[in-house]
Amino acid sequence: MKSSFLVGLIGAGVGPSLSPALHMREGFEHGLSYVYKTLDITELGISAEGVGDLMREARRLGFDALNITHPCKELVIEHLDRLDEAAARLGAVNTVVFTEEGAIGYNTDTTGFGRALRTGMPDAPLGTVVQIGAGGAGSAVAHALVSQGVDRLVIADMDLDRAQARAEEIRRHHPDSAVEASHVDKLAALVPEADGLVNCTPMGMADHPGTPLDTSLLRPEARAGGERSDRRPLWVADIVYRPLDTALLQAAREVGCPTLHGGHMAVYQAVDAFRLITGIDPDAERMLAHLRELAAAG
Amino acid sequence: MKSSFLVGLIGAGVGPSLSPALHMREGFEHGLSYVYKTLDITELGISAEGVGDLMREARRLGFDALNITHPCKELVIEHLDRLDEAAARLGAVNTVVFTEEGAIGYNTDTTGFGRALRTGMPDAPLGTVVQIGAGGAGSAVAHALVSQGVDRLVIADMDLDRAQARAEEIRRHHPDSAVEASHVDKLAALVPEADGLVNCTPMGMADHPGTPLDTSLLRPEARAGGERSDRRPLWVADIVYRPLDTALLQAAREVGCPTLHGGHMAVYQAVDAFRLITGIDPDAERMLAHLRELAAAG
Repeated sequence: MKSSFLVGLIGAGVGPSLSPALHMREGFEHGLSYVYKTLDITELGISAEGVGDLMREARRLGFDALNITHPCKELVIEHLDRLDEAAARLGAVNTVVFTEEGAIGYNTDTTGFGRALRTGMPDAPLGTVVQIGAGGAGSAVAHALVSQGVDRLVIADMDLDRAQARAEEIRRHHPDSAVEASHVDKLAALVPEADGLVNCTPMGMADHPGTPLDTSLLRPEARAGGERSDRRPLWVADIVYRPLDTALLQAAREVGCPTLHGGHMAVYQAVDAFRLITGIDPDAERMLAHLRELAAAG
Repeated sequence: MKSSFLVGLIGAGVGPSLSPALHMREGFEHGLSYVYKTLDITELGISAEGVGDLMREARRLGFDALNITHPCKELVIEHLDRLDEAAARLGAVNTVVFTEEGAIGYNTDTTGFGRALRTGMPDAPLGTVVQIGAGGAGSAVAHALVSQGVDRLVIADMDLDRAQARAEEIRRHHPDSAVEASHVDKLAALVPEADGLVNCTPMGMADHPGTPLDTSLLRPEARAGGERSDRRPLWVADIVYRPLDTALLQAAREVGCPTLHGGHMAVYQAVDAFRLITGIDPDAERMLAHLRELAAAG
């Protein structure tokens, strides 16, 4: 059985990623020789369109698999030999595994967010969910939310066109779903109707301080109405994980809202990628504990 | 401290090399994430002269160091930023470490054989030694033998010109040494005068069956004469390590000659390379035991 794995992360500004540490420690725990390298296109002087050449070069030099991140998740697709169904729906790939049949693309952002939500917030009511941010990460989260059984998903963005395009894309793949688009200036009306709120913008990251909405909209009391309402407080999830504890999550906790930090999605996308790459089921709890440790260390 | 290492082996036909397994197991024992990949120029469709480009490509994709083998050990030199003194003397590099100061070349074949001899045959008399084979491996061994204090070294080859060139090269770097060249057809006269014999030809490998000399020349009784003679049997060392037990070593043992198999040199060159790459002192005994295990497994 294969016991040595070489994995790379292609993207822009990937130097500070925690993925190398997460993957390598978990690999070591399983007795594997596992090295995970960042391949920063900015440092390498490669354009995002160069992802195909870089992928082939990495394969040639012995890489077994790659993670792909911004701005290459869509661009890598035309260079693959086969696409997993979920990745095809999303139109975005974050994991490429090199096999004898060629380079196969997957998306573990969406499976990762789905599993993070099920595991970290198993009782979260899924009536109406408002998602802020319709970018690439927003796409993965929206697909995951609909797949998890959300009744009504509202995708809000500062760019209404982008929100509408994203909503349409989700409806195309999930014809039975109720997905709406909105501008973020409607959040004051939308959030009171919601069971849950997910931040898919970069707001809250070290270089994007602040919150994606007016935190006075966060409320501990039950939402205004709706069939599936069980009069519980709004739940709040963030996909930002550096820092783990964002201003949004702090404000939510202060008023008694249950929260899910971005580390859950970060870990579960790594869990799913590790499994695709090695064929071994990693210990998700151990990886989550490791992420907390890494995040605390700065 | 750095805890992750990516290392490659550049050469022709390196697929069956035991270096990946030796390095990776030892790395794991030290708690490192350590991956060692073969980069076979034949499979990659690269000429030996392409070693410089391949080296730069590997560095660019995150390799920390490389081992270099046939036919690239000399060709790689012009692409390095700095050369270790012993490697410069040899005119051959088998280890390249990428540092902030650039790519630095070393030769652990010669330090490896020296240490193998000291460790595996600490009492071997070093009066006169006959070495068969004047190629690249022969060069590393000849330098090591002279550095270990051999009084008189005879380099025998089927190609007398090559033997003479090699002898001259050794004398240039070790002006006080007594190094001679000879054709292999003189072995019948040379071996009876020798304290030790080293095979540096491929004879004995699976695809080069046989022995590099008429084994009736091997003798258990003391050599004919000479100041340093202590009337001990001829010692016989082989640098072939696949298989570990060559026909030459078998014949030597049968008549009572002490022997040193090629696994010692193979392991000690890996020991020295591992130390240069990681800064960590590996456990040579453990690596030797691992090599025996790998060799036994085929």
